[in-house]
Amino acid sequence: MAYELHYWPTIQGRGKFVRLALEQAGAEYVDVARLPEDEGGGPDALMNGLQDEPLRPPFAPPYLKDGDVVVGQTAAILLYLGPRLGLVGDGEQDRIWTHQIQLTLADIVAETHDTHHPVGNSLYYKDQKTEALRKAEEFRRNRIPKYLHWFERVLMRNPAGPDHLVGDRVSYADLSLFQLVEGLRYAFPKASAGALDDTPLVTALAASVAHLPRIEAYLASDRRIPFNEQGIFRRYPELDG
Amino acid sequence: MAYELHYWPTIQGRGKFVRLALEQAGAEYVDVARLPEDEGGGPDALMNGLQDEPLRPPFAPPYLKDGDVVVGQTAAILLYLGPRLGLVGDGEQDRIWTHQIQLTLADIVAETHDTHHPVGNSLYYKDQKTEALRKAEEFRRNRIPKYLHWFERVLMRNPAGPDHLVGDRVSYADLSLFQLVEGLRYAFPKASAGALDDTPLVTALAASVAHLPRIEAYLASDRRIPFNEQGIFRRYPELDG
Repeated sequence: MAYELHYWPTIQGRGKFVRLALEQAGAEYVDVARLPEDEGGGPDALMNGLQDEPLRPPFAPPYLKDGDVVVGQTAAILLYLGPRLGLVGDGEQDRIWTHQIQLTLADIVAETHDTHHPVGNSLYYKDQKTEALRKAEEFRRNRIPKYLHWFERVLMRNPAGPDHLVGDRVSYADLSLFQLVEGLRYAFPKASAGALDDTPLVTALAASVAHLPRIEAYLASDRRIPFNEQGIFRRYPELDG
Repeated sequence: MAYELHYWPTIQGRGKFVRLALEQAGAEYVDVARLPEDEGGGPDALMNGLQDEPLRPPFAPPYLKDGDVVVGQTAAILLYLGPRLGLVGDGEQDRIWTHQIQLTLADIVAETHDTHHPVGNSLYYKDQKTEALRKAEEFRRNRIPKYLHWFERVLMRNPAGPDHLVGDRVSYADLSLFQLVEGLRYAFPKASAGALDDTPLVTALAASVAHLPRIEAYLASDRRIPFNEQGIFRRYPELDG
């Protein structure tokens, strides 16, 4: 049976990390909320799904349905899918290390979101722009370099070589790091350019993921939603310094 | 061999979630940074450990050492320890659901931190107090109730009964929810009182965890660090409305 991914139909957001894994594996999946409304799509059905799920309700999208199993939280979805899609190593140690990297990616993704919504989601960006300008400055100056240098160190220390974060083949963490780099380039073109110059292994990994045949095909397809100013990575030039 | 927990020696912070699991299991562990400096303790040794770890460097404390295995990220540490300490169910579905709850707990913990550091950790609280006042208002009004009601729903829908988040025995998620409730009561005594009145199952679970014999003994011991204004849960009355 096909996997069902449930996520906002008009943004990349956190769903993109799952979409990339499903695409790279060539898995059968339905991006449910992108279906027409009479086939169960649309944001209303997505939100109703959070309430309807009787026993183990996810807190927020994205969530994955695999038959009767429902899994929410992006990193947990990838933890679940990793072995099934062949996107993680076999042993417990590789799996927990890959997951640890993913959780660190989740942390910078949350911080990226907070650059434009430092107060919270109940307010529009324009109503928290003063706070956003300060938050974004901190993010550009301290957080982007700190995270990218950590990923660089992880690549440098990988005993199997610097082409992958873990071991010698593509993991979901590699795909997610690619998405982070793409997102930072979109939202913070100036700030990320400097930081990426200093982290050549990260830059090379992102480039190599972009050219994986299935990822390349996905990025060129209409299954890929363009970046926009409703997602996590938003291009507000005033936040790029 | 005893587990080694590496975390800031003077705060509860994220380390407390791991400490509670180790204590409830009666596990042998060393809280390394709390040792005297000549035995490897202290904050300098803690930070050096992040750099020294040759192959799989954690991004930040807490991290756990189990022989040669090093695991960072609080939720990943609990994912690793859960089966070893008997603090999670046996099947994959219970384990991923418990982890999903833990990741949602991690989200509100991060948001709690941001109420006093909405701009970032490079600045003192006093230098981001204006932003903190707005962030905390949003947190009190929208976020505390949203999260607590979700935990309440999880308890209500547990087929094994509302005494535990997952199944019919204590999991690390139960211990972590207790810690969240304790932290909110410390940092936001007024705001959390109202929200907890509306979530009686959450309140009852927190009370029952506090009276588990090993947890009760831990809380009364000097292994338990008191709450203070260097940790994640800080009592700044102006942020409690």
